Amino acid sequence: MLPQWIIEKKRDGAELGTEEIRAFIAGYTDGTLPDYQMAALAMAIYFNGMNARETADLTVAMMESGKVIDPAALPGSKVDKHSTGGIGDKISIPLAPLVAACGATVPMISGRGLGITGGTLDKLESIRDYRVGLSEAEFFRTLETVGCSMIGQTAEIAPADKKLYALRDVTATVPSIPLIVSSIMSKKMAEGIDALVLDVKCGSGAFMKDIEHARALAKGLVDTGTAMGKKVVALITDMNQPLGRTVGNALEVGESLAILRGEGPADSQGLTLELAARMLALAGIGGDGPAALENGSAMETFEAMVACHGGNLAAGLPAANKQIPFPAPKSGYVAKADAEALGRASLLLGAGRAKTTDSVDHAVGLSDLKKIGERVEAGEPLCTVHSNGHENEAELRKLLDSAFEISANPVAAPPLIIEVIEG
Amino acid sequence: MLPQWIIEKKRDGAELGTEEIRAFIAGYTDGTLPDYQMAALAMAIYFNGMNARETADLTVAMMESGKVIDPAALPGSKVDKHSTGGIGDKISIPLAPLVAACGATVPMISGRGLGITGGTLDKLESIRDYRVGLSEAEFFRTLETVGCSMIGQTAEIAPADKKLYALRDVTATVPSIPLIVSSIMSKKMAEGIDALVLDVKCGSGAFMKDIEHARALAKGLVDTGTAMGKKVVALITDMNQPLGRTVGNALEVGESLAILRGEGPADSQGLTLELAARMLALAGIGGDGPAALENGSAMETFEAMVACHGGNLAAGLPAANKQIPFPAPKSGYVAKADAEALGRASLLLGAGRAKTTDSVDHAVGLSDLKKIGERVEAGEPLCTVHSNGHENEAELRKLLDSAFEISANPVAAPPLIIEVIEG
Repeated sequence: MLPQWIIEKKRDGAELGTEEIRAFIAGYTDGTLPDYQMAALAMAIYFNGMNARETADLTVAMMESGKVIDPAALPGSKVDKHSTGGIGDKISIPLAPLVAACGATVPMISGRGLGITGGTLDKLESIRDYRVGLSEAEFFRTLETVGCSMIGQTAEIAPADKKLYALRDVTATVPSIPLIVSSIMSKKMAEGIDALVLDVKCGSGAFMKDIEHARALAKGLVDTGTAMGKKVVALITDMNQPLGRTVGNALEVGESLAILRGEGPADSQGLTLELAARMLALAGIGGDGPAALENGSAMETFEAMVACHGGNLAAGLPAANKQIPFPAPKSGYVAKADAEALGRASLLLGAGRAKTTDSVDHAVGLSDLKKIGERVEAGEPLCTVHSNGHENEAELRKLLDSAFEISANPVAAPPLIIEVIEG
Repeated sequence: MLPQWIIEKKRDGAELGTEEIRAFIAGYTDGTLPDYQMAALAMAIYFNGMNARETADLTVAMMESGKVIDPAALPGSKVDKHSTGGIGDKISIPLAPLVAACGATVPMISGRGLGITGGTLDKLESIRDYRVGLSEAEFFRTLETVGCSMIGQTAEIAPADKKLYALRDVTATVPSIPLIVSSIMSKKMAEGIDALVLDVKCGSGAFMKDIEHARALAKGLVDTGTAMGKKVVALITDMNQPLGRTVGNALEVGESLAILRGEGPADSQGLTLELAARMLALAGIGGDGPAALENGSAMETFEAMVACHGGNLAAGLPAANKQIPFPAPKSGYVAKADAEALGRASLLLGAGRAKTTDSVDHAVGLSDLKKIGERVEAGEPLCTVHSNGHENEAELRKLLDSAFEISANPVAAPPLIIEVIEG
């Protein structure tokens, strides 16, 4: 079977066989199948899609292109969470230690930020000396002693995905459900987990702007995980406004610590507990999330994990030179606090990357964000800007002006959890 | 403008700008734009097509990737013909000298055969010592002294097409009208011609199996040539049965010589005269094709051209070791003489190439082919097989059995010219 026959089959809308998908990805991984054939297949998949069976086969093929952690090598019930990415989404940081404190093992492999979307690894690196690149032995030791470890993707995990992701970026084949699903799931399923909770973001600050696309992605993720024999559930959550009250690396770690103390903003605190409950339920562990916050065991677990990663929490988090309040132009109710515009503002301040090779400023960002439905008085801050002077002030002002809308009439707070897709 | 933005634009069904197409092809030609981005764009074009303006821009961009002959460098009215390829289509060989004998200049760049489709260059090489690879000076001298020259594509003509054609072959992006049109026309328009007649084949032995696809291709070719300021007309002609009574390289040269004597089979003789009349009309020359056959000037022009190419007609054409009649199983009227099956039979005998690196046997093929509508008696040959013993006899027999159908009732001969598309 020549690769072009497989491309032709997908081009003509036919279903690819398991062995065809396996051979194509194996050839792509070892370099015998060139980038241009992968690019043509990716574009054909963009147009004609893949059914659940094909998507699961593609995921398995990409997962098996690299190292797959043997679940038996790790203690207890292994469970993880993955978010498709949004603005102010720091939930992984308090969530992993909270779930570990309740008795599960959380071997979490995270990513870096790109564009307006933040990344867990960048946030963790706000903590002085925190190393995201543990050796395999250190990773396993941390999981055994602490119950959770948060590391970056290694070269050994799903190398086919690493190669394909870079190719999709330059061939306009990123927004394809089967390609997104297999990219996410090939890495997550390589972690040796038994169960996975997915947080599919939907709204202006997310990759999926509307519920139809979010639902299709959530269904694809759940179907693929289920087909691979894992317990999977997906929550579709609102990303039209940022999650919590902070956007920016160190600021989000600060909010994460508040969540671990049980003192976080209602939405991020609530979502952390909701996701923890879902993870524990899937893992079959009867842990009590609120109790683990109250008795301090979640915070202790976080501190122990940071220590295993070489991090120094006692050194404090970096702070920006200037904290500037952004005042409300009039009194009323917050009707809009646009996630995309606030993400762009944070990117402008230096908190994120325009391209993968950029570096980030951990100190800058936004805090004290007002949420939709909250009452504000004229002159009261809609947020506080944390700046090290990188940004064009006029451009920032324009973004913040466009981000907020104040209504004279009361506005209902939108629901955070829009839908739950079960396996 | 990054290449991926151009791919994305086409992926989303938008119209590409002239400068976007030019930059993409220029980058692809000089190697700064990689094969994988060209492959992704080609697949997006496969799905979303290109309008007439985009197709003309793509053709110009590919043409300008290499040498373009200045029409002023050649004498008189320059006119050419291109066929999309079929079984037994030897028309170019008598046609070019016939039109040249009537006063036009015919700078014909032809191709080789692949699969069941024969190639003019392979046929010409049946003539001992005929060189298809003239130097530019030899090509111009032949055109000036004889009026026609038939050569192979050089590395200087449309190198972007050469590169893209090879890429399309391995990325399942061959059957796309704008890509086919720009491939054909970028080479033809580089010949420095004023006018072009296209013979778009339609039927089992052609690339286009049905009239809708053939019409779309013909229209694309005519629109593109017209947009580039040339006089263009396309004939859609039947390719459900072979053209003429021979299939195979030397056998087709033999039939070409018969056509030049005015003694060819009705269909190939008639089509040669029809195409000659169209070419002369487009070139604005009042030549008389039938007279040029009758007074021998067309044959003299052919002989002079062969001499300029170093060919030796006096040496005779190669003949196969065995001539085996294939008898009709019963009496009746020929209802089917399937071009595809007879093309496969010829390929099996060694007349063609399964892949581009194969060599061809010039002597083998089929002759004395009965045409649809003709009366045959049981045992009378439906064709004569010319073999050098390369083929599997059972397989050949199966192909020939499947190729012909004999009907007890009279069958009407199908029209050869199905439609004419004018610019």
